[in-house]
Amino acid sequence: MTTNNISDLQARFDALKAQNLNLDMTRGKPAPEQLDLANAMLTIVDADSARSEAGTDCRNYGVVDGLPAAKAFFGEFLEAPAEQVFIGGNASLTLMHNTVMRAMLFGVPGSPRPWCKEPVVRWLCPVPGYDRHFNICREMGMEMISVPMNDEGPDMDRVAALAASDETIKGIWCVPKYSNPTGITYSDAVVDRLASMKTAAPDFRILWDNAYAHHPLYAENDSVKNILTACDAAGNPDRVYHFGSTSKITFAGSGVSAVATSPANHADLIKHVKMETIGHDKLNQLRHLRFLKDMDGLKQHMQKHADIMRPKFEKVVAILERDLADTPGVRWTTPRGGYFITLETAPGTAKRVVELAASLGVKLTPAGATHPNGHDPEDRTIRIAPSLPSLPAIEQATTVMALCVKLATAEKG
Amino acid sequence: MTTNNISDLQARFDALKAQNLNLDMTRGKPAPEQLDLANAMLTIVDADSARSEAGTDCRNYGVVDGLPAAKAFFGEFLEAPAEQVFIGGNASLTLMHNTVMRAMLFGVPGSPRPWCKEPVVRWLCPVPGYDRHFNICREMGMEMISVPMNDEGPDMDRVAALAASDETIKGIWCVPKYSNPTGITYSDAVVDRLASMKTAAPDFRILWDNAYAHHPLYAENDSVKNILTACDAAGNPDRVYHFGSTSKITFAGSGVSAVATSPANHADLIKHVKMETIGHDKLNQLRHLRFLKDMDGLKQHMQKHADIMRPKFEKVVAILERDLADTPGVRWTTPRGGYFITLETAPGTAKRVVELAASLGVKLTPAGATHPNGHDPEDRTIRIAPSLPSLPAIEQATTVMALCVKLATAEKG
Repeated sequence: MTTNNISDLQARFDALKAQNLNLDMTRGKPAPEQLDLANAMLTIVDADSARSEAGTDCRNYGVVDGLPAAKAFFGEFLEAPAEQVFIGGNASLTLMHNTVMRAMLFGVPGSPRPWCKEPVVRWLCPVPGYDRHFNICREMGMEMISVPMNDEGPDMDRVAALAASDETIKGIWCVPKYSNPTGITYSDAVVDRLASMKTAAPDFRILWDNAYAHHPLYAENDSVKNILTACDAAGNPDRVYHFGSTSKITFAGSGVSAVATSPANHADLIKHVKMETIGHDKLNQLRHLRFLKDMDGLKQHMQKHADIMRPKFEKVVAILERDLADTPGVRWTTPRGGYFITLETAPGTAKRVVELAASLGVKLTPAGATHPNGHDPEDRTIRIAPSLPSLPAIEQATTVMALCVKLATAEKG
Repeated sequence: MTTNNISDLQARFDALKAQNLNLDMTRGKPAPEQLDLANAMLTIVDADSARSEAGTDCRNYGVVDGLPAAKAFFGEFLEAPAEQVFIGGNASLTLMHNTVMRAMLFGVPGSPRPWCKEPVVRWLCPVPGYDRHFNICREMGMEMISVPMNDEGPDMDRVAALAASDETIKGIWCVPKYSNPTGITYSDAVVDRLASMKTAAPDFRILWDNAYAHHPLYAENDSVKNILTACDAAGNPDRVYHFGSTSKITFAGSGVSAVATSPANHADLIKHVKMETIGHDKLNQLRHLRFLKDMDGLKQHMQKHADIMRPKFEKVVAILERDLADTPGVRWTTPRGGYFITLETAPGTAKRVVELAASLGVKLTPAGATHPNGHDPEDRTIRIAPSLPSLPAIEQATTVMALCVKLATAEKG
């Protein structure tokens, strides 16, 4: 099992090939059993209960910024005053994308001009990070500047130096808790520096994608310092948009998204949102309010998710420890929440590992996906998504992956 | 009742004031009884039926362009091949807005450059028209050019002359059936000219907001020539985006929207949509498919709407005929579908009518809302929305409005 002899590894590889595996650890999709946890929500609003507690007929048009009860709920969820919350559709990705798109076309409060009128717009991208964030930057024609992640967030010396010196740098992506894909949580010091650092751009924005705020794997949840109040205290009240959703709480395809931001950003957002919608799906907001009830209800619900996810994460880590402890240059993260584990292979081998695994029927997230433009300069980062497969499938897939890591390392010599 | 003597009118006005009315005919919102028609949809998808017929777990992420069955349904709905259909969220307004926003930032197939890089973008706006269309143009900084509507659509001599001579004119808004707010339906000749006319802009676009395609008030439904095939036949396959939704079929705030367009436009749309969503709410798509079943099911359902709406429209028209037949300069439309009636008052009196009605507690759509930038140059167009109020409320509100028209006419002398 722990041999690093290339011909032994190759023999095991060939034996596995005969098994015709078909396993997928590519994306952070919840498992069916996790979705089952919210099944009661499907029919919780019926013909007799389609009015909100405040009396609004949720079937009809109206209420552009979300039901007041939904704003109150997401205010607690995002740790912001309810009046600074906007309720979106089924995806915070859309809220983030449209925030950037509007900034390009109209600017944000404080912008000298729309970003599309700037000769160039640059954006800070902590790496490894989330491919869909990078895709938005690429779509908008932005230049992405990678900054390394460490155990307490992005390398703030780099971030602060870049932001202070280059007025074309308009912002940064952040996944502050159980980060995608390393699983680390930002320290208070990182939050404070992000909030208070000098930026050459007067309209610098932090897109705070708090996708895993309520997604611990254990009884205790990490806490992240409140970025909105930190920005406000530092005299940069308009610096941050704080995004969240219930996609990985109730139904991944039918959740409710929300964004909390400063009063000025919120007013600017609403001004534009009114042009594009008469209001997002209030029936789905109502379903969520009835089902989750309040933050205590949400926390209890998330412990049921944790009970399903925790063994999967622990299984991956156990196999990595079992099979790769002695493989040079290899290390991995052991997150206490979120959806991903990051595996760092020997430099120059990640693509090969993914390729080898694919040839055995194990699909991994493409190597490079964790970096801007799909290019990991050291070719050593692999994102592992243990949520969707069953526990036996994870055991098989991780064993295969570990073998491929050893084989790729051995091939490299 | 038919006196035009100003002091008699004033006396009746004062008497009505004492009644403290509170009536609203401002917006095209369905009445609660119409929403009730779809109540079975609320619980039609439950824990045992959350997979599509093709086996997709509709609770989870994925399927960016919509369930295949939803694409097939909306293909029939929009009279286009299913593969050219994209399924959106709860509002076709969002699809329209985002189509324009993307054109501004990225251009459309055939654009020499993104529209935001043009010195000026102009847009043809048939008037009277829909305020939310005009709002989108205004938000994007476009110059709106009004063209008059007649009984078979926009004045095509004007439209064709403008489009052919001015390359900054990038498109036109159209509500082809039971138009908002006049209720007229475009003739085949108008459709053919829109499809085949020469345009100076190589990337001219028709935004075909077919909001009332399936919304007749009577057993027979108007038909509109297929604009997609007409454009294709005329050698302008990429000229049109055809929008629709179930907002006024099932639930106004929780419907499903869709857009059908050419293969090139569709591919361009999907390329961008992938950056902003992993897929719209499939559970809601599934609810609609299960509830409406097919186009026959939809037609039967819409006859139930017609049975509720028809008496309201007929009541408005009957009162206008009763009270305003002899008032000079006044005329109105008698739509056979859709959501609105247009009342044309004597020039220079529409604002006054709305003001007088408001002082009696009857809210009408602001005069001017039917024109770009809220400015009706002749100040004579009032949009009447009879859907939401009850029949007795409509009778009261229309009687009040008719009195206000007579009073404003008399004041004008």
